Amino acid sequence: MATIFTKIINGDIPSYQIAEDENHFAFLDINPIAEGHTLVVTKQETDYFFDLKDEQIRDAMKFAKKIAKGIDEALSPLRTGIIVQGLEVPHAHIHLVPLYTKTQPMALGHNVKVSEDRMEEIATKISDKVNR
Amino acid sequence: MATIFTKIINGDIPSYQIAEDENHFAFLDINPIAEGHTLVVTKQETDYFFDLKDEQIRDAMKFAKKIAKGIDEALSPLRTGIIVQGLEVPHAHIHLVPLYTKTQPMALGHNVKVSEDRMEEIATKISDKVNR
Repeated sequence: MATIFTKIINGDIPSYQIAEDENHFAFLDINPIAEGHTLVVTKQETDYFFDLKDEQIRDAMKFAKKIAKGIDEALSPLRTGIIVQGLEVPHAHIHLVPLYTKTQPMALGHNVKVSEDRMEEIATKISDKVNR
Repeated sequence: MATIFTKIINGDIPSYQIAEDENHFAFLDINPIAEGHTLVVTKQETDYFFDLKDEQIRDAMKFAKKIAKGIDEALSPLRTGIIVQGLEVPHAHIHLVPLYTKTQPMALGHNVKVSEDRMEEIATKISDKVNR
C-alpha cells in the first residue's frame, strides 16, 4: 500500500506543495513545529534514511539545501535546521525546521498553530524563492 | 579563535573518538540525549551547515552514514536519527541519535546520564564496527 507521502506526491492527498523534481517532493508539514516547517521526501519509498544509497542521500540533501535556502530567503530565520527521525511514516524524509530564536524548541510534536491562510501564504513565499 | 570542535579534532580537548578521515571527525557528544549520541564534524570551520558546498554535504553525509551504520550494529537501536541545529557552536556538525523506542524524546537538551566508563565502552563498540 502506498505511504501517506506517496499519496501526497501523487496528489491523492492535497498538500501545501513547495517544489518537486524527478526524485523528490517538498511540502509544508501539516503539523508544523515552526512556521515554514517543510518535509523533503524521496519519491522512492525507502523506509530508513540511512538505507538510501550514497547517491540518493547526496541528491536528497542537494534538493533539501535548495529548499532550506528558499526558506531562509522567504522567512529570514536565524537558520534552518534538520531533523530525520522517521519512526512514524516508513518513507524516508527530511524535516527542514526554520529556527527563529536560539531557544526555540526543535522537536517533533512541539507543534505551533498556523492557520490555513498562513500555510498557503508561507508555501507560496518559499516556493517563489525556490522556483524562480 | 579555534572552535571547541577544532580543539577536539586537534586533540587539545579530549574526546571519546569514534572515527576520523581527511575531512571529518566523529566522537560521542559529551551531553548525550541517548546512549551512543555521536557528533560528526567537518574539519573545516563553516558555521552554517547549508553554507557547506554540495560536495562537502555529500561527503559529510557519506561519512555520517558509515557512523550511523556502526551505531546500528553496535547498539541495535530501532534506527539512528539526525539533528542539525547548530545554534551553539559556529562549526557545522551533525548529531546522530540512536532511537531505542518509538517514544524516545529526540531533542537536544533532553540529556541522559551516561557514566565515563560506559561512554568509553560505547565509543569502543561503535568504533570497532566503523573501523574494522
